[in-house]
Amino acid sequence: MSNHMKPLILVCNDDGIFSPGIKALAEVSAEFGDVEIIAPDRQQSAVGHAITIQTPLRVRAFRIDNRFNGQAVSGTPADSIKLAHNQLLNRKPDLVVSGINHGSNAGINILYSGTVSAATEGTILGYPSIAISCTDFEEQADLSGCKDAARKVIGYVLNHGLPRGVTLNLNAPAGSLKGIKWVRQANSRYIEEFEGRIDPHNRSYYWMTGKFQMLDDGENNDITALEKGYASLTPIQYDLTAYSLLNELKDIEL
Amino acid sequence: MSNHMKPLILVCNDDGIFSPGIKALAEVSAEFGDVEIIAPDRQQSAVGHAITIQTPLRVRAFRIDNRFNGQAVSGTPADSIKLAHNQLLNRKPDLVVSGINHGSNAGINILYSGTVSAATEGTILGYPSIAISCTDFEEQADLSGCKDAARKVIGYVLNHGLPRGVTLNLNAPAGSLKGIKWVRQANSRYIEEFEGRIDPHNRSYYWMTGKFQMLDDGENNDITALEKGYASLTPIQYDLTAYSLLNELKDIEL
Repeated sequence: MSNHMKPLILVCNDDGIFSPGIKALAEVSAEFGDVEIIAPDRQQSAVGHAITIQTPLRVRAFRIDNRFNGQAVSGTPADSIKLAHNQLLNRKPDLVVSGINHGSNAGINILYSGTVSAATEGTILGYPSIAISCTDFEEQADLSGCKDAARKVIGYVLNHGLPRGVTLNLNAPAGSLKGIKWVRQANSRYIEEFEGRIDPHNRSYYWMTGKFQMLDDGENNDITALEKGYASLTPIQYDLTAYSLLNELKDIEL
Repeated sequence: MSNHMKPLILVCNDDGIFSPGIKALAEVSAEFGDVEIIAPDRQQSAVGHAITIQTPLRVRAFRIDNRFNGQAVSGTPADSIKLAHNQLLNRKPDLVVSGINHGSNAGINILYSGTVSAATEGTILGYPSIAISCTDFEEQADLSGCKDAARKVIGYVLNHGLPRGVTLNLNAPAGSLKGIKWVRQANSRYIEEFEGRIDPHNRSYYWMTGKFQMLDDGENNDITALEKGYASLTPIQYDLTAYSLLNELKDIEL
């Protein structure tokens, strides 16, 4: 960026461009620079790192709260970031932030999260990127502590940058925080429960629900930090290679 | 499994239950045990690790080639594995295989891949799991080498198992192979190109296309192995923590 310009912060999410969380994140971002909101036009939770290659994408421009420029994309969070990068921004962003998600993206949730995928896509494209989530699913949750944590992490990243290939994943409980902890992704999973029903035409269908199951009995993980009232901050990467195992296996001839 | 039972192999994919690739993989799997095909009812490429929580799922049973039991799920690859595990199988599978995908899932493609996400979901649920892809997009591609590689890897995993939390990601070129190499995920990305068009109602829309860009100049990565005529075999994990960076950052107070 030129010395005369404020940093440009691209704001995305997976709850859709009209969610309270994205406005909260735009407000925090505006303390640091110019803000452009480019995000899915509707709820895209649990889409993971999906991209849209079989249907075309449409974009509509909005003013949000008479304050922010918004562009709503008829696709996924990752689509929104790709399209922003390639077509919709007048200059390259200095930072990509995604959130504030209404619901935790800690532990195994990271894998299913559209919020995280938007930030990961920012990282792939070479931008420092942060995913930000509040553990409370309620749209009216108190995001004040989460905004404080976001403010600190955004300030840190704008000043220090991030190494290539790494995304920061920030989660915070609703309300006030005890502080921010650097932690790893907790080992965890869902125990799915499928509720079978019969429709009015006598055909069966299933609703997926699931109970979160903590499998990690160590400390210094995101779920444990959140349970203790801290925000969790985890550097994540999209190189999925299990290097230690690769090293063990590499001499086995198949 | 009891000593009297053959291993049960659950076969999934992201190209849909009627693709040639899934039949090829079912044929190889049948050499080792009983086969159950449970997969999306239609093309689900590039859905990443999406799951379906806002609409219900439907399932239809089929015979495939008068030989295999198939169940087509109206959802994503990850949905199919969750539903198979929870509702659709009479006994727990000994192995989950996903593919044979029509198209490479090496390098950055791993992140967007529905094929890989089915296998990853198998791993999360505690089953040894393998994703298998052919680099040739053509449905009529020669999968013989890919089937040979799949046969070797399936045999290895049924005999030796896999450590918890690790998925094997196998790719092979079309036709014959020079062998199978254990390699890491190549550093790579897409250069997106969005083609803007105007619809008959005078509204604009975009088609996403992209050129694959290799960023990795090392050896021992999946893309390079494939280019040299080998199958690539990469252990991948769903713990996305960037541990080396976490170790560097953990003393920074925010």
